[in-house]
Amino acid sequence: MAKDSFLVGLIGSGIGPSLSPGLHEREADRQGLRYLYRLIDIDTLGVPPEAVGELLRAARDLGFDGLNITHPCKQLVIDHLDALAPQAEALGAVNTVVFEDGRAIGHNTDVTGFAASFARGLPDAPMERVVQLGAGGAGAAVAHATLTLGAGQVTVVDARPERAAALTGSLNRHFGSGRAVAAAPEELAGLLERADGIVHATPTGMAAHPGLPFPAGLLHPGLWIAEVVYRPLETELLRAARAIGCAALDGGGMAVFQAADAFRLFTGREPDSVRMLADIAEMAGVAESPAGKAV
Amino acid sequence: MAKDSFLVGLIGSGIGPSLSPGLHEREADRQGLRYLYRLIDIDTLGVPPEAVGELLRAARDLGFDGLNITHPCKQLVIDHLDALAPQAEALGAVNTVVFEDGRAIGHNTDVTGFAASFARGLPDAPMERVVQLGAGGAGAAVAHATLTLGAGQVTVVDARPERAAALTGSLNRHFGSGRAVAAAPEELAGLLERADGIVHATPTGMAAHPGLPFPAGLLHPGLWIAEVVYRPLETELLRAARAIGCAALDGGGMAVFQAADAFRLFTGREPDSVRMLADIAEMAGVAESPAGKAV
Repeated sequence: MAKDSFLVGLIGSGIGPSLSPGLHEREADRQGLRYLYRLIDIDTLGVPPEAVGELLRAARDLGFDGLNITHPCKQLVIDHLDALAPQAEALGAVNTVVFEDGRAIGHNTDVTGFAASFARGLPDAPMERVVQLGAGGAGAAVAHATLTLGAGQVTVVDARPERAAALTGSLNRHFGSGRAVAAAPEELAGLLERADGIVHATPTGMAAHPGLPFPAGLLHPGLWIAEVVYRPLETELLRAARAIGCAALDGGGMAVFQAADAFRLFTGREPDSVRMLADIAEMAGVAESPAGKAV
Repeated sequence: MAKDSFLVGLIGSGIGPSLSPGLHEREADRQGLRYLYRLIDIDTLGVPPEAVGELLRAARDLGFDGLNITHPCKQLVIDHLDALAPQAEALGAVNTVVFEDGRAIGHNTDVTGFAASFARGLPDAPMERVVQLGAGGAGAAVAHATLTLGAGQVTVVDARPERAAALTGSLNRHFGSGRAVAAAPEELAGLLERADGIVHATPTGMAAHPGLPFPAGLLHPGLWIAEVVYRPLETELLRAARAIGCAALDGGGMAVFQAADAFRLFTGREPDSVRMLADIAEMAGVAESPAGKAV
């Protein structure tokens, strides 16, 4: 008899508003699975990020099938795992842990999730010259995805030059010299003139960080835009880009496909990502997202 | 919005065959709740019974709503709780822990479960002189229930005299001097001649301990029989008792009502114990239990 009961959760900080429980549980319900997705917030528990190892062990002992891991535990968790999948090892960050026969295996579905969303939403996008804004945790994952998808060169722009340099150094070691270049925000205008597309991986555009990450005047119709922010699905950047005719991909796709990939790892079952895209549009409070057309 | 998602479990030793997951989850499914009941077996984990405190803390941190506790942790768990319900305090044993606002509250639904099953299955049974076989953990719980229901005197028979004496001492301190008396197995024949009914609380009759707890010739039609064993539902003792016309109550009722009481404590919702009685008959492998008539 195939297993049809699953207990999973998310460990991280400030995760109360996460859409992951809804994304996972709705899909599981449609598949007739007993499935519970619990939020394990280190802030609520009053424990430091380093407690992730102890929480992981406890979850395994209490019958969890797996865990998602988010900020600030994606690197810290690695010391407590028995093995890493290649994309997690390359990135040095884990967002999904699967318990198999008592072993804890680390994966990274942020990478595979962004790649799947991009391939689906912007299938014909030219990728010779990609400009990426943001070199944080999400930035590292999506840069890995973009280069894996075959981008010629990714130029990483971050307000903190040392962070951009660290990321591009790591990308070049993994994907080959010259595939990634660090640049300063002042260079953005010139970079965008010659770019094929933009990956936006900073928090700007979220409810807590409204606005545009750069002046709308730097956009031009020859650019595609891929957004990582998904709350709201329709950011100011996407609105400005669409207004001048850019192909645009919202962040909902990445959120859905990383969840779908984790669901597949937890359950061994194939999720229906199209239904999950409809779920996220509904849960993010946008009944019919304009981004739905591009996604 | 009422909470409709519940994570619970059972901590104990050798609990693989437990029917509790099925009893709880079937009732929850009928009520439209998301409900997961996990088995946390200390033998499988390779930890001692004293680990119950750590497991309890971990379960609270990871989002469990409550736990059932069974052998050998029912006493050990008490040191790790914030408060005890009266019946658990009187008995000195906890089989149900509810997490409420970060506090762990201990209950004992073995006591309430046996009382509910008895009141339903043998409502008119005379209780002036009750003989109970077995002074272990189950015996302590059902003796508390029987005296709470108004039994005049319970005579406790156990192969280990010191165990019978310890239980009756504790019962007399709680319910009043003379309500409980310890007796040796050799006295059973004389005791049963004058008794109204028998509560059977030893393992005899379970698959691993087949047979009768005493010679069938000691039974007479004036006795009622209440069984604690529920796997099988129809023990040899019940069969022998029914054959000579005794009113008989199988152990399924206690198993169901302790689960129903725990379900109510975990969820705040009223379980349908009649449907749960049908569930246990089915799960125990007896489609239509003869005991169903008496239960």
